[in-house]
Amino acid sequence: MKVVVILSGGIDSTTLLYHLKAEGHSVFALTFDYGQRHRKELRCAASICQATNTPNQKVCLTALADVFGGNALTDHSVTIQPGRYDEQTLAVTTVPNRNMILLSVAIGKAVSLGYHAVAFGAHAGAEGHMYADCSPAFAAAMNQVAAVCDRRPIEVLAPFVNWKKADIIRRASELGVPFELTWSCYQGEDVPCGRCGTCLDRSAAFEDAGLSDPLSGQTT
Amino acid sequence: MKVVVILSGGIDSTTLLYHLKAEGHSVFALTFDYGQRHRKELRCAASICQATNTPNQKVCLTALADVFGGNALTDHSVTIQPGRYDEQTLAVTTVPNRNMILLSVAIGKAVSLGYHAVAFGAHAGAEGHMYADCSPAFAAAMNQVAAVCDRRPIEVLAPFVNWKKADIIRRASELGVPFELTWSCYQGEDVPCGRCGTCLDRSAAFEDAGLSDPLSGQTT
Repeated sequence: MKVVVILSGGIDSTTLLYHLKAEGHSVFALTFDYGQRHRKELRCAASICQATNTPNQKVCLTALADVFGGNALTDHSVTIQPGRYDEQTLAVTTVPNRNMILLSVAIGKAVSLGYHAVAFGAHAGAEGHMYADCSPAFAAAMNQVAAVCDRRPIEVLAPFVNWKKADIIRRASELGVPFELTWSCYQGEDVPCGRCGTCLDRSAAFEDAGLSDPLSGQTT
Repeated sequence: MKVVVILSGGIDSTTLLYHLKAEGHSVFALTFDYGQRHRKELRCAASICQATNTPNQKVCLTALADVFGGNALTDHSVTIQPGRYDEQTLAVTTVPNRNMILLSVAIGKAVSLGYHAVAFGAHAGAEGHMYADCSPAFAAAMNQVAAVCDRRPIEVLAPFVNWKKADIIRRASELGVPFELTWSCYQGEDVPCGRCGTCLDRSAAFEDAGLSDPLSGQTT
């Protein structure tokens, strides 16, 4: 099958790319610049596409930062507090309806390329699905709407939607995913900060998976 | 109810805005610049918001023209043939998955504003639903996914989805919609060309509705 994959440059979507290729699918990667705080993740995505010889395109949606504003991923005046996610951090790190926006553009790209499906790296958090737009219900509903949005149905794949991050890291290890090319930290420094919500999540997931993160020795 | 309306500046979405206000809803209008061939429609949308004192925002998605390319609404090197729509014209005037893209951003805006719903002007063509993403099945599926994309469900309203354009024009006439402020023509000249697919559709719909278009006397 020919699949457009949403590739952020993090572990989840990078493993998704390797997973789909391992299953024999042809992959086109779409990376979104929606005004993230740093460029590091985008550069990682480009390196991963180069390493895997994957056709890819960067989609510039930075104008959305003006539309929504007020969240820490796009509004650089908002500070991200260190520590594990809590309700407040979650609200401030959420781009409203982000996954539907990214999937709708990916579906448009699949239509224009004559591809069959799109895929995204939604998965469960340590305590279930923290983000509504990463839930199995959301993935199923997106698959329904993608079946009727064009003359030809497009499938929405979310093979990790019931997996925890540690499951993804185990699968990544089987697939030989180059962890050192991926990026999770909300800060865009040379090495991960080791203190933000995503750094803590990443390190907990590596621990759960019984594996070591090549980036973790580099924390500041 | 508080509703984010997708306003293009054409008759359908303008009537939708008036219709929702007449039903007592509070309306916020989102207008999308996705690289349309001309600015005329966007200026009309701004005039309509001014005339109705409607809070509004323009969303710049011109970067999407680079992502898709090859269609006449965004790629200015593609020529639109005069005459009624046919299969070929339809393919060339379609932005892939346009309505899902616009709705997903509108839903994000509704989430960030704390609004309850989004609305779009989907309706039936003279011979049924020409565009998949204007069909009742699509509108219903969007409503389903919008119910689960965030912690708080957002409704997707498409009150005209089973109406023909002539029905919309009759309703517009009841509501006192200023037809002279709306724009349909695919060309962006001072007056409508009178020959493109949308001009012919508009004039046929006015005829069906038994009304006259204040813009029609001005055709070139």
